[in-house]
Amino acid sequence: MGSPLSIPSMLRTEPGPEPVERLGSILADDLAAVDQIILDRMKSRNAPRVEDVAAHLFAGGGKRLRPLLTLAAARLCGYTGDSHIGLAATVELIHTATLLHDDVVDESRRRRGRPTANLLWDNKSSVLVGDYLFSRSFQLMVETGSIRVLDVLANAAATIAEGEVLQLTASRSLATDEATYLKVIRGKTAALFSASAEVGAIIAGASDDVVAGFRDFGLAFGMSFQITDDILDYRGHSGGLRKNVGDDFRESKLTLPVIKAVAEGTPEEIVFWKRVIELGQPGDGDFAKALQILERRDSLDQARSDAVEWSDKARLALSSVPESECGIRGLLMGLAERSVSRLY
Amino acid sequence: MGSPLSIPSMLRTEPGPEPVERLGSILADDLAAVDQIILDRMKSRNAPRVEDVAAHLFAGGGKRLRPLLTLAAARLCGYTGDSHIGLAATVELIHTATLLHDDVVDESRRRRGRPTANLLWDNKSSVLVGDYLFSRSFQLMVETGSIRVLDVLANAAATIAEGEVLQLTASRSLATDEATYLKVIRGKTAALFSASAEVGAIIAGASDDVVAGFRDFGLAFGMSFQITDDILDYRGHSGGLRKNVGDDFRESKLTLPVIKAVAEGTPEEIVFWKRVIELGQPGDGDFAKALQILERRDSLDQARSDAVEWSDKARLALSSVPESECGIRGLLMGLAERSVSRLY
Repeated sequence: MGSPLSIPSMLRTEPGPEPVERLGSILADDLAAVDQIILDRMKSRNAPRVEDVAAHLFAGGGKRLRPLLTLAAARLCGYTGDSHIGLAATVELIHTATLLHDDVVDESRRRRGRPTANLLWDNKSSVLVGDYLFSRSFQLMVETGSIRVLDVLANAAATIAEGEVLQLTASRSLATDEATYLKVIRGKTAALFSASAEVGAIIAGASDDVVAGFRDFGLAFGMSFQITDDILDYRGHSGGLRKNVGDDFRESKLTLPVIKAVAEGTPEEIVFWKRVIELGQPGDGDFAKALQILERRDSLDQARSDAVEWSDKARLALSSVPESECGIRGLLMGLAERSVSRLY
Repeated sequence: MGSPLSIPSMLRTEPGPEPVERLGSILADDLAAVDQIILDRMKSRNAPRVEDVAAHLFAGGGKRLRPLLTLAAARLCGYTGDSHIGLAATVELIHTATLLHDDVVDESRRRRGRPTANLLWDNKSSVLVGDYLFSRSFQLMVETGSIRVLDVLANAAATIAEGEVLQLTASRSLATDEATYLKVIRGKTAALFSASAEVGAIIAGASDDVVAGFRDFGLAFGMSFQITDDILDYRGHSGGLRKNVGDDFRESKLTLPVIKAVAEGTPEEIVFWKRVIELGQPGDGDFAKALQILERRDSLDQARSDAVEWSDKARLALSSVPESECGIRGLLMGLAERSVSRLY
């Protein structure tokens, strides 16, 4: 990828509270309504296990980024109805369902600093409650009565599922190139960010250009967000995420910084990466060694350039969307900017 | 449940080839088109594992009962378009996706006489390819452009998922009563049978009464079909199913005959059921002992009465639907009748 696009400084957000917090307070009533819908839909008279698992998941918190995108897009497009609430709940349910299945596939033991559902109950419950959440999200989206919304969400679901299957085979092979990695994170993160923003604009009856602007914004923001996350797993940060440095490495996950380092690696370095990633045998001291190689090859900074470029693309995608009185467009741009500024 | 409803003999099918085969030959072109759509949609440029797993699944055969219901309902309602093909593919994909997740949850090793995908690949692939098939089915149903169809399928998906979670907790507990068992098999089998028939009628523009007739037919046929299957696991049959007698028992699954036997069991029999079902410790000779108890308590015949009653309900549900020239209504009624006649 080339150098970051230039963004006029007037588009950059002011210092102060985080954009995610400012958006959250502007949209506080909507977010509370979303939480209420999620709680209501999780009730299952027939299968109490659903409620236990769901309560555990939603008590774990999380930033509700995807519902925020839907709500913000709808409001920014002047929407005054209430279908955006159900849609915002829909995207959060889809997200939660994929987390449940991811944790089974990754055999994860902790998420957001708490034990995963597959550890507390079992894999069976995680698979089936994931299916249940997905079916509930499906009912919610049908209630909007919009085939266009359903089309966007069906395509997102297919991209997510395809990305997950691709990751199964790609995440442990050193032959995985950047193009494949980008497909994986598009499925893992960007497809749902994109759909979340796009359906908010669609439900508000925005023009095709504006809808495309939100779709592109969500996609680029999602790519930037995931690349940043992958870098932070090596470099760490002082932000609010409770993810531990080195988690991806200990799980032998191939991410963008490693792909870049492998592409320029010496034969000796390739032997190292083969052992820790492909053979899955990272040992004591290997994380420090990996960091040394990544710094030597400038791989983390190169990955950061890519994340910044996606963040710039995200903000540009919104540049033709008119700003609202309460400054939602600026805050969405700020979200995309702050995401990568975790890297500075 | 009471005695079987009386059905006029004119509604009964003629002897000869099985109704499923006769329906299959009347709808042969449609079925071939369904298979082609499934094959096309299973292609994944990005994730070759999907194709491997899907090819294994669809090569395993199966009777394509659910697509047959959709195609038959649409044709019987005089449909001349081609949206029923995509819908029939949709219900088969949903069915296959649930089988993949079921096999993970049940830790099954064989299905239809062949190794399961979770055994050939791994649980991860089964979970994720199941998600992928479901997302593809979701795209297909959105292509119909019918919110009413989507509503029916979303509700079916929720009933299926809820039934699966309920089964997790209910299938090993002797406290499970008939009402709970009926909820489980409604989710496991009847909900998708019902939706398959109903969406065929909806897409054909049938009246609300006729749509309800197909919905009720599919539901009752599904209930009858699953109860019959559960009985056959004890009693066996000479039909084409390659399911082994005693599979459910060896997996300590609580099904209708056992629930009936437990309800009337002596203290000594309850101790036996506790050991083989709740504690999951069936041993040599226990299957023969279970059969003895089931015969002594008349549980298999009682369950058969229930299956026959559901089959009668299924046929009655179609009685106000006009017959087509090629006799599709009679064949659907014959399907429901033959399903339980496996028990004679």
